[in-house]
Amino acid sequence: MLAAGPLQAAQGERVRARDLGVAPGIFATGTHNAITDVAGVRVGQVSLIEGESVRTGVTAILPHAGNAYRSRVPAAVHVGNGYGKFVGLSQVNELGELETPIVLTCTLCVWKAADAMAEWMLAKPEMASVRSLNALVGETNDGGLNDIRARPVSAAAVRQALESASDGPVAEGSVGAGTGTEMFGWKGGIGTSSRKLPDSLGGWTVGVLVQGNYGGVLQVAGAPVGQALNQYAFQHAVAATDAGKGLADDSGDGSIIIVIATDAPLSDRNLRRLASRGMMGLGRTGSSASNGSGDYILAFSTNESVRRAFDAPRHSTTELANESMSAVFQAGVDAVEEAIYNALFMATTVSGNGITVEAIDLQRVRQVLRRHGINPQP
Amino acid sequence: MLAAGPLQAAQGERVRARDLGVAPGIFATGTHNAITDVAGVRVGQVSLIEGESVRTGVTAILPHAGNAYRSRVPAAVHVGNGYGKFVGLSQVNELGELETPIVLTCTLCVWKAADAMAEWMLAKPEMASVRSLNALVGETNDGGLNDIRARPVSAAAVRQALESASDGPVAEGSVGAGTGTEMFGWKGGIGTSSRKLPDSLGGWTVGVLVQGNYGGVLQVAGAPVGQALNQYAFQHAVAATDAGKGLADDSGDGSIIIVIATDAPLSDRNLRRLASRGMMGLGRTGSSASNGSGDYILAFSTNESVRRAFDAPRHSTTELANESMSAVFQAGVDAVEEAIYNALFMATTVSGNGITVEAIDLQRVRQVLRRHGINPQP
Amino acid sequence: MLAAGPLQAAQGERVRARDLGVAPGIFATGTHNAITDVAGVRVGQVSLIEGESVRTGVTAILPHAGNAYRSRVPAAVHVGNGYGKFVGLSQVNELGELETPIVLTCTLCVWKAADAMAEWMLAKPEMASVRSLNALVGETNDGGLNDIRARPVSAAAVRQALESASDGPVAEGSVGAGTGTEMFGWKGGIGTSSRKLPDSLGGWTVGVLVQGNYGGVLQVAGAPVGQALNQYAFQHAVAATDAGKGLADDSGDGSIIIVIATDAPLSDRNLRRLASRGMMGLGRTGSSASNGSGDYILAFSTNESVRRAFDAPRHSTTELANESMSAVFQAGVDAVEEAIYNALFMATTVSGNGITVEAIDLQRVRQVLRRHGINPQP
Amino acid sequence: MLAAGPLQAAQGERVRARDLGVAPGIFATGTHNAITDVAGVRVGQVSLIEGESVRTGVTAILPHAGNAYRSRVPAAVHVGNGYGKFVGLSQVNELGELETPIVLTCTLCVWKAADAMAEWMLAKPEMASVRSLNALVGETNDGGLNDIRARPVSAAAVRQALESASDGPVAEGSVGAGTGTEMFGWKGGIGTSSRKLPDSLGGWTVGVLVQGNYGGVLQVAGAPVGQALNQYAFQHAVAATDAGKGLADDSGDGSIIIVIATDAPLSDRNLRRLASRGMMGLGRTGSSASNGSGDYILAFSTNESVRRAFDAPRHSTTELANESMSAVFQAGVDAVEEAIYNALFMATTVSGNGITVEAIDLQRVRQVLRRHGINPQP
Repeated sequence: MLAAGPLQAAQGERVRARDLGVAPGIFATGTHNAITDVAGVRVGQVSLIEGESVRTGVTAILPHAGNAYRSRVPAAVHVGNGYGKFVGLSQVNELGELETPIVLTCTLCVWKAADAMAEWMLAKPEMASVRSLNALVGETNDGGLNDIRARPVSAAAVRQALESASDGPVAEGSVGAGTGTEMFGWKGGIGTSSRKLPDSLGGWTVGVLVQGNYGGVLQVAGAPVGQALNQYAFQHAVAATDAGKGLADDSGDGSIIIVIATDAPLSDRNLRRLASRGMMGLGRTGSSASNGSGDYILAFSTNESVRRAFDAPRHSTTELANESMSAVFQAGVDAVEEAIYNALFMATTVSGNGITVEAIDLQRVRQVLRRHGINPQP
Repeated sequence: MLAAGPLQAAQGERVRARDLGVAPGIFATGTHNAITDVAGVRVGQVSLIEGESVRTGVTAILPHAGNAYRSRVPAAVHVGNGYGKFVGLSQVNELGELETPIVLTCTLCVWKAADAMAEWMLAKPEMASVRSLNALVGETNDGGLNDIRARPVSAAAVRQALESASDGPVAEGSVGAGTGTEMFGWKGGIGTSSRKLPDSLGGWTVGVLVQGNYGGVLQVAGAPVGQALNQYAFQHAVAATDAGKGLADDSGDGSIIIVIATDAPLSDRNLRRLASRGMMGLGRTGSSASNGSGDYILAFSTNESVRRAFDAPRHSTTELANESMSAVFQAGVDAVEEAIYNALFMATTVSGNGITVEAIDLQRVRQVLRRHGINPQP
Repeated sequence: MLAAGPLQAAQGERVRARDLGVAPGIFATGTHNAITDVAGVRVGQVSLIEGESVRTGVTAILPHAGNAYRSRVPAAVHVGNGYGKFVGLSQVNELGELETPIVLTCTLCVWKAADAMAEWMLAKPEMASVRSLNALVGETNDGGLNDIRARPVSAAAVRQALESASDGPVAEGSVGAGTGTEMFGWKGGIGTSSRKLPDSLGGWTVGVLVQGNYGGVLQVAGAPVGQALNQYAFQHAVAATDAGKGLADDSGDGSIIIVIATDAPLSDRNLRRLASRGMMGLGRTGSSASNGSGDYILAFSTNESVRRAFDAPRHSTTELANESMSAVFQAGVDAVEEAIYNALFMATTVSGNGITVEAIDLQRVRQVLRRHGINPQP
Repeated sequence: MLAAGPLQAAQGERVRARDLGVAPGIFATGTHNAITDVAGVRVGQVSLIEGESVRTGVTAILPHAGNAYRSRVPAAVHVGNGYGKFVGLSQVNELGELETPIVLTCTLCVWKAADAMAEWMLAKPEMASVRSLNALVGETNDGGLNDIRARPVSAAAVRQALESASDGPVAEGSVGAGTGTEMFGWKGGIGTSSRKLPDSLGGWTVGVLVQGNYGGVLQVAGAPVGQALNQYAFQHAVAATDAGKGLADDSGDGSIIIVIATDAPLSDRNLRRLASRGMMGLGRTGSSASNGSGDYILAFSTNESVRRAFDAPRHSTTELANESMSAVFQAGVDAVEEAIYNALFMATTVSGNGITVEAIDLQRVRQVLRRHGINPQP
């Protein structure tokens, strides 16, 4: 019933962007090329695949191994296109910090998921006197493959995602909160990437995880893959020509949630600036943030020197000056772009709810990339 | 179990602000001096009073008699202090419109309430193909009188509030989402008020409903009631001296949700401007929007000339010019101030969760007001 | 031609709010009840009164005695109502800091004043290689008494204001950038106030300076002075009935610039929160931020522990936690309210540009206040 | 002294992006592939090249042929990165409209330019009673080639740009406000582009003009031109290795102003959404909005059905619904990307202020593009 990453076996033939020669930007990746390259960050995922019509799941990101409420990381949310139901964002921006992990799931499931995460947090012994909690839950609409109206995410699934979180490699593609999502008219999903700045620029790591479920005309490192494969997935084109894909005109056409973690010691203001750059990476992939796409970017810093004890009257912090931010921004944009490609390339074909959404054909992608001078490293 | 306005009997001795001679501003009120003076607006409330520790409820505001999703009113949210869990706000500001009624309830209940409202909306026959819905739920923290950690708001209570909504007078005080709230150290609750502009200024009605649950040092029409009654209710004072009131230092100290309705034909931008003025009315009552107070103001216009059919490719609207807004702003500020006093003066003493929160002593208020030249109309 | 505070002699009969018994809130004032009670803050003012039609001036606020560019204070601007021409605000909020002093002047003079301040800053020897500078200049529209279309503020006047800045008492009323302004239909001007928190709440000082030039229906500590004196000054009423006052319907109806200084060690985010509370103090005085009122609040912290050296790659700071902010907010709201009353009560009658704007009659104010229980301290 | 487009002769060998085979996106261009393809929009430019050290200028964009104050276009500004001195933005967003044309110039010249535009506007006979005007002036920092500290833009230059504005083709490259700017380490300048939607998507035109002066690692339609040509222009790299280019570490590292015009009938809210997409087009070119880059996007609609008479109490408008926006967004992103390439490719080498900034070598660009499958149309 609950399956942690059940599709990984089938992903044998899928590859990440770097395996196709796609390596955005100028900086090196971290060890796993994943958000978990930021020390302490953990990811837990549960895929929900039940009967004919449940194709959804949960992806949880934990900022550190401790209690997120009591040891708070500075954070900020940038609203790229405020369609969608991202729960908890106003308090993040007011207080500049997280109180919980971040949970991603399906659109109409956000409220159940938030309630479940709150219950899970409040049950901790050290939380016995807490009466307010800002549960943070993002979503994208997998209502094509998934019977979203049934709101099929249980409290158990949310707990499992939170409790199974670990560091190390992160499952990508049709998994967790990406089990039922679509991108550019193909199957989408979860993707991740990271950058490690050279020591001369601070040596910081920036990690990204995306839940991709949006449209546009796909570009990969500028190569016009969407045009070459004759796939145009933006709202009106889809509504007019492609209703069989399940994107009814009242369903909202997509969304992407982007989570950026870094060990650079950033203020919440500079985290908000970093988050806003996510839209620049998104733009590179062929999105123009269509009307019904809920495009949100959350950024947080794990650095101990900016950590906040929840009951301290003052905080002593050492943070990067504005003038030290540019390389961090660049790393963020590049990692967002690559995480998106990973989500798309690692996604596997999924059937559900009466339709099938195909994974993108990587052979054809390779051909297009090759014509545009992009080849795998030998 | 579910009781619609069960406390009204006990409110015999409570009076509204005007009965004490408090009448902010220069414009007349509407018929009921209530948000329902804006034609079409309906309010439904359910008070939840169970056993020793459930003292909470639901207040629903419906913008018109039809389906809020299919016939959308322009709307905007101003975040005065973004502490708190107001669900659904980013989409309201992105699209400039409501898709659902507004539900108010207790802090840790917002997610269940949003899920319940979505279920209720999606069950309507005309909503059968809808796969995305932006449920709008505000909250304040009644965790003093109410066992908020149990999240005791059921889907049935939310449905009942929505389905029992009506026009006409609105129950105030310790009712609905105000059943367990506190204001300035006394019992708080739901309050409402309205203003009707003279025809020379457009003749528009502006109605306000508040869920009041915040602190500060109470002023009533400038009279220093808080000081006179030796009641200082802001976060640290309370935390230090008054823990028996149940405001533990990790609980969040209050909040106020302000809903402003008008029949003036306003763009979403001018509604956002109107909403922002709510903080000015709030300031008059002695609040300074303390750190843990979630102060949100939502404004919407019911005027048919700015209504949006959900599937229309274009909208033809006639709206007020910027230059016609000032009187509407003034009406909004004054009505917010008065709605807050109504919430406080109409609230009745409530015991629950091991504590008792007293209603403010109106005799003593009268004395203070009299010393400050404020007397009931003869 | 240039006169530093030439109207002070005539101000003998004018008094500050406290002299009338008006003392908003619960905290004590600082030594001078002025923004300069925040150690290091200096104010310089030049009144420009020339011929029949120049009635304007410059008020400069310097955050500390050093070079504001090289030793930067964290800062934030809240836009209460974004009518108006406040120059430089976007960079303040992006970088969270000031690069220059703050200059206040008349609406159409802001550009000349900004250019003059930049010239003055760039001429300093230590600024020889600087090629970018964010001059910060606010304004209100004194176009009733002043021939604003002539833009009569010279670079010399700006320099003089900056160079004559000092600590100690601050001239109020019809002086500096308040020489030609109007409030609530009477003569307005510059006002200031401060609060000193008790040591148990941190002991911080919060100082405010306002350039008041706006409308509404005056309330003083809640007493309805505007109604009692039959003075209703909001946009349309004025346009319809009172054109002789010089508020033509295309001129913009007022504005207020509020500057808040504090020695509390605040992050730029918490400074933005503090700034936003300025609207609550403004609301208490009878404003509803009319359409054409440019209402901006700038807040900055002088505390050395949050100061930023302009070329440091990192900043080590000790700042107040969110949970320590509530008393600072309260101090800010109260000081804003009192600074506004001081601006109004200290202003003297001014004639210019063919009209006369009377100072408010303090005898009549005293009578109204007395009826509302407000009496001078014996 | 003043020269309208004096560098055009030298631009013979420069070509636009399409001539190199670079044609972002899927929609056709307008007639001139310029912002002036939006009917009524006019552009005027003055290049200031004087002595050894003045290399700057003015570019003015007029939204229509009439008086911009009396016949107001709805408008909005998105702040991508709020470094910089964009004058007038808060009122645009508060009122949702322009009152003046848009003027672009050099950083420290904005104040003089705003004063000059105000003077020019106020001198019109129909403006005789106007006492408030929101001059809108953007800038980028040409302090490498230009003696920016001298603020060498005169009122006469601003007037000439405004009065010489015309429709038809727009001069690009090292002209007007782009005379002295740099992009990606090469000479930058003014660029423009447009898109014309198919009739099935509304048939609207979206036109863009950019003043480009920023850094990053250049990508052209994804082809890594910056890496191939070994040019890495972001703040710290430049500061450390390339001081001869004139980008001192206190000068601010660039900026881009993007102006988007459309004849689609858009509300100010949807114009703000359109403006925000400009960052997505910018991201495609290799920018990550470095710390010191002032990245602002202004969008306005020329459609008569959303035009506002300045003194009308109400506006009757017909505007696109949210659901009709996606294609407009796509057009905007694509046109921004192409306008940027045009600015870079059309720019010619300029010497001034003791340095020379080379135009990008188009032969080498062609080689890189060819390796990446991008070839001129035969």
